[in-house]
Amino acid sequence: MPYNAAFRCFAGCPGRYPLTQPLYRCPTCNGLLDVVHDLDALRTRSADTWKRLFEERFRRGPWPLGSGVWGKREWVAPGLPDDAIVSTDEGGTSLLRADRHGRALGLDELWIKQCGTSHTGSFKDLGMTVLVSVVNQAIRQGLRVRAVACASTGDTSAALAAYGAAAGLPVAVLLPRGKVSTAQLVQPIAAGALVLALDTDFDGCMTIVQRLAEDGVVYLANSMNPLRIEGQKTVAIEIAQQLGWSVPDWVVLPSGNLGNAYALYAGFRMLKDLGLTARMPRLAVAQAERADPLYRAWTAGQRDVAPVVAGETVATAIRIGNPVSAPRAIKALDEMDGVVEAATEAEICDAAARADRTGLYTCPHTAVALAALEKLERRGIVRRGDRVVVVSTASALKFTEFKVKYHERALPDVESTWANPPVHVAPDYHRVLDTLERHAAAMT
Amino acid sequence: MPYNAAFRCFAGCPGRYPLTQPLYRCPTCNGLLDVVHDLDALRTRSADTWKRLFEERFRRGPWPLGSGVWGKREWVAPGLPDDAIVSTDEGGTSLLRADRHGRALGLDELWIKQCGTSHTGSFKDLGMTVLVSVVNQAIRQGLRVRAVACASTGDTSAALAAYGAAAGLPVAVLLPRGKVSTAQLVQPIAAGALVLALDTDFDGCMTIVQRLAEDGVVYLANSMNPLRIEGQKTVAIEIAQQLGWSVPDWVVLPSGNLGNAYALYAGFRMLKDLGLTARMPRLAVAQAERADPLYRAWTAGQRDVAPVVAGETVATAIRIGNPVSAPRAIKALDEMDGVVEAATEAEICDAAARADRTGLYTCPHTAVALAALEKLERRGIVRRGDRVVVVSTASALKFTEFKVKYHERALPDVESTWANPPVHVAPDYHRVLDTLERHAAAMT
Repeated sequence: MPYNAAFRCFAGCPGRYPLTQPLYRCPTCNGLLDVVHDLDALRTRSADTWKRLFEERFRRGPWPLGSGVWGKREWVAPGLPDDAIVSTDEGGTSLLRADRHGRALGLDELWIKQCGTSHTGSFKDLGMTVLVSVVNQAIRQGLRVRAVACASTGDTSAALAAYGAAAGLPVAVLLPRGKVSTAQLVQPIAAGALVLALDTDFDGCMTIVQRLAEDGVVYLANSMNPLRIEGQKTVAIEIAQQLGWSVPDWVVLPSGNLGNAYALYAGFRMLKDLGLTARMPRLAVAQAERADPLYRAWTAGQRDVAPVVAGETVATAIRIGNPVSAPRAIKALDEMDGVVEAATEAEICDAAARADRTGLYTCPHTAVALAALEKLERRGIVRRGDRVVVVSTASALKFTEFKVKYHERALPDVESTWANPPVHVAPDYHRVLDTLERHAAAMT
Repeated sequence: MPYNAAFRCFAGCPGRYPLTQPLYRCPTCNGLLDVVHDLDALRTRSADTWKRLFEERFRRGPWPLGSGVWGKREWVAPGLPDDAIVSTDEGGTSLLRADRHGRALGLDELWIKQCGTSHTGSFKDLGMTVLVSVVNQAIRQGLRVRAVACASTGDTSAALAAYGAAAGLPVAVLLPRGKVSTAQLVQPIAAGALVLALDTDFDGCMTIVQRLAEDGVVYLANSMNPLRIEGQKTVAIEIAQQLGWSVPDWVVLPSGNLGNAYALYAGFRMLKDLGLTARMPRLAVAQAERADPLYRAWTAGQRDVAPVVAGETVATAIRIGNPVSAPRAIKALDEMDGVVEAATEAEICDAAARADRTGLYTCPHTAVALAALEKLERRGIVRRGDRVVVVSTASALKFTEFKVKYHERALPDVESTWANPPVHVAPDYHRVLDTLERHAAAMT
């Protein structure tokens, strides 16, 4: 295959490194890494040829090329042999037309990219299939590690454990003992990962896992790893593809560690550079007000994102005070004429509940994006006629407790305006009939 | 459009009725209804033309024809106008190649049809989009009902509420008060359904909702309704499509009320009748041993399925002692050279756990099918070289408690052979290293 990609320093230090090298930071400056593709090689195929190829494979195959990620393999991890690929048929998620919710927000055209309707229930599958496949190949080429490891309590460990299990690779998840319930960990536990509960705090776990990675004992699957961004950028490619190879006016995205914001940029950038689309959409990054370092920096005109102490938020997966990918996100915002918006707990919870009333079933993070969108629309930044895509990052089936508490009015600092508790009725035909009639009348 | 379909008595009474008529039983014999299509009209297009049309639309559109159900609209509910369709982009789910689990079972080719990776997290979306769309059209044509209603506590109410909300139609769910937790009901609650908690038992709820339906107050979305089968039969069409318009040797399906068994038959039958495929696959219906009326009847050579008292099972959605669609399932088994297998609680739980260890994350019902498959393979009925598709009916994200209890060894009558509890380790580099090395050694 004539295509190739390599690690390169995000800040521009010289040097290129193969993707199969276990490398997490620039060896020169210790900063972030990027994956760069040989665009000249990719340009030997025309934009129309790429579109046709991607269309032919999309959701169809042959296995594993029906995957939304591996159907774009030349743009993601070129040169990876077929039999190294570890896939759960990720990607290819719905771009759902949210007519009723769009109208409620005063928008003509609102779409939800349902990244959470996936194998492990979050967009993390997209990046993890690339990371685990590349590690799989590296191991075939002689890399020796005891496990692929991370120190996550959430979607990352779920995705890592599932892909590791599919590949037959050992996976280890490190956590502070007593801080995380079995329910939160049940996906990696079920997938047979070695779940290590340590008598220390989260930073203590990170310190150990990073040292294990430095010593080559484990391969580190953390969010700093640019291989994950290569998979996640296919979200942008799919959005364009599903809109008939055009880009929306806005993409609204909830973000904590900010890697996904850069991934969207990377995808849209590649589409434009290779001539498949003519322009970039605008980017709106949405944060919870209680964990909003990017919002604070961007609205103050600062290029450096100062860490904050993240507070309790229902949007647990984006409760991050010191985002690893902040410099990446700043670049994405620069290049996509971006904005950053933040939402309070009450705004997040009510946004979820309103959206659910139109048949969506939104995780708290997606609700952060919907709440931010509402505010941007009110401020005239997003306009009625704009075509808007909201990226939904996880399945709300992972957030039953959040939904229950909202509807039982048990969330602190939240009024639960849209709570819809069960109605007790006597087991009598006419009483039930009366209740039905009042409900139907209220809906019209 | 020249295509048309109508309700007809399943047992053969004369008379045809429009799909938009609120009809749940044959007006003559009070038995089950079927949907019949005008196959001669459908034959005016060749098999290759149908394949091409279905391929063009699949996951692509234009909206809502990217849906796995509505991409086959002529075979499902012909004549339904575009703007009556209520879709969440259902269907088009992954046909996942389960290599590691297949090898563990001694099978060369095992595929999992992931129907639970869908908008509301179960295969019920497929039938509900058809039912709600047809009701939506009936209402436009003058039907007056106070709500679309059901008396379900599980996936049916979740799907009905979501589609009702997407359409802006009132939905009512009737339940016995105090028997069902908010968590079990949170999907319909979030979707704004009127959830009526009645001081009676489940039968009391059914009696009231059926009387409301007879009186025309509500439209009944129960599993007797053949419109749901029309949507569910697209699972068969998709399986064939995803296998390159060929059929597998076996389809293994967990079933309680048995409508889904008939739906698979209806889909494969239509493919064969219209020349898209050459033969029928064999059908294996899997039941939990504690709710196995079909298993008992079929293995005893009986054509009538006698009700049983269903016991407690982890496979809650198929805990049904008196299946509504039993006559339909007998026909499916007859025509598909079918078998029925049953699995104990321990077999179900261990089958789930073993599959999860290979990166699947299986709901208890899918585990019933996997356990049955294992038994059929051991008995030589399913053979190594057979191409096998297991239908996964729901997302395991709905069954966190089941997974937690298994891995905490807290399920009654189950040994949890594959439990994988967290390992407590001192927060020390060398202790962690030792544990990793032992784990890696155990995997090889």
